[in-house]
Amino acid sequence: MKKVAFVGLGAMGRQMARNLIQHGFNVHGFDLNPAALDDLRRAGGAAATSAAKAATDADAIMLMVVNAAQAESILFNDGALTAASEGAVVCLMATCPPKTVAELSARVRALGYRFVDAPVSGGTVGAEAASLTIMAAGESDAFAAVRPALEAMGSRVIHVGDKPGQGAVVKTINQLLCGVHIAAAAEALAFAEKVGVDAATVLGIMQDTSAASWMLKNRGPRMLQSDPEVTSAVDIFVKDLGIVLEAGRESCAALPLAALSHQLFLSVSGRGDGAADDSQVIRAYHALNGKPA
Amino acid sequence: MKKVAFVGLGAMGRQMARNLIQHGFNVHGFDLNPAALDDLRRAGGAAATSAAKAATDADAIMLMVVNAAQAESILFNDGALTAASEGAVVCLMATCPPKTVAELSARVRALGYRFVDAPVSGGTVGAEAASLTIMAAGESDAFAAVRPALEAMGSRVIHVGDKPGQGAVVKTINQLLCGVHIAAAAEALAFAEKVGVDAATVLGIMQDTSAASWMLKNRGPRMLQSDPEVTSAVDIFVKDLGIVLEAGRESCAALPLAALSHQLFLSVSGRGDGAADDSQVIRAYHALNGKPA
Repeated sequence: MKKVAFVGLGAMGRQMARNLIQHGFNVHGFDLNPAALDDLRRAGGAAATSAAKAATDADAIMLMVVNAAQAESILFNDGALTAASEGAVVCLMATCPPKTVAELSARVRALGYRFVDAPVSGGTVGAEAASLTIMAAGESDAFAAVRPALEAMGSRVIHVGDKPGQGAVVKTINQLLCGVHIAAAAEALAFAEKVGVDAATVLGIMQDTSAASWMLKNRGPRMLQSDPEVTSAVDIFVKDLGIVLEAGRESCAALPLAALSHQLFLSVSGRGDGAADDSQVIRAYHALNGKPA
Repeated sequence: MKKVAFVGLGAMGRQMARNLIQHGFNVHGFDLNPAALDDLRRAGGAAATSAAKAATDADAIMLMVVNAAQAESILFNDGALTAASEGAVVCLMATCPPKTVAELSARVRALGYRFVDAPVSGGTVGAEAASLTIMAAGESDAFAAVRPALEAMGSRVIHVGDKPGQGAVVKTINQLLCGVHIAAAAEALAFAEKVGVDAATVLGIMQDTSAASWMLKNRGPRMLQSDPEVTSAVDIFVKDLGIVLEAGRESCAALPLAALSHQLFLSVSGRGDGAADDSQVIRAYHALNGKPA
């Protein structure tokens, strides 16, 4: 794989592109934000003036964009797809609804290109450390073609299925659990505060019992702060649990815990705190229960 | 502490009593089940023919019974409390509603006895290995008096507050998280099956991402079996989440995720599977979604 186009150099994308460069890939990047392009140049990549120019003669187009609509626009409206080399692999790494991914993949493959659906877990920390979990789906030859690039960005690259969209399914299941676990931690700690036991003591105990979750340990301490540093915003889970529920609707699967958790994140966003750290979903419980002074 | 009465020698209680004996406590036990008394005798304890006889001149009465009503009956109707030595400590280790514990404690203390509320987490495995987490609440002198006994049964003995009932609160919060996490794991894995991705692959990935929970790792593999060995029954969570919701009602705290999870366990119990392993809460999702053949 000689040339890789990377479109979407946000908080995660720019770290992922840098890891590709450090592993010897010839990365041509594009983003609407000039500062992101400067970053890419400093890391040793080539900054393109359009997605189509980044994709010209590329063997793979990595997309770490905001949503599926952006991916579609870049590939089809902006001309990135037809600029790529024959049989190039489109690798969609953003979190998108499974059915939308499958449809996009069908359009790409109808034009003779290949498609791998490869959403990631691990956040900006994992993107920087190249320790992402990457849940890839696509036909074996397409997966094999992008695997070295994926392994430059993640420490666990798992081929979860042959059908593009199956990666998105696995990622939505990951986000289902993450979102419900954050909301459950908030329910538990707000309850401790409401009934007058020390929430920090409760948190300390629960981190090492059968009540433990990764999210309880990671988000719990920030739930006990009134205005913690933002590591990931409430509105990210408004979006991600929205995708989970969309995936549920597409397959007529009941996801009652995800739906309820989504309501709690929506409530906090609707009350004006969508940009707060996602641990602050606990504010929905403070609103419901009253927060003791 | 010379003599300890231990009432309630079930799956956990008999292991806990054995650990007390092995740490040098003079344990007099009682249970309605003769086999449990035989076990106690073999472990080096004294088997009493009534709770009052076990409690006669005891410095502490440990209660590992089914519920608060049993504890009350043993202490007040069966005469165990007044048989104990002056200032003896009643140590209630069963999972009970916080308000009920506080009321029972008030009755015990009104008669000049002391009370420590000390529910446990860790199950039969923790009871056997003396690795229980014990969440104790009560006045400092009462806690200090039973602490050596508690440390013979658990590896983490935490004094969570001065008011009996606060241990029960912490235990209910533990069960809230456990119950919601089991239900969330079931929702996630049933969704994977419904949409045709390999649930075992999903489980393998999620155990090491931010989607991880102790329950996902422990119960997840048994969720993928159709009739797994029973390690803890669905009906235990019907009871425990019932206690969680009762505690929520007592303090007018909204616990929507616990309430929804309770409904799912209730559904499985109502369909006739209350004695199945609690991982089988996934059957509620199979009923809702249809299980692919």
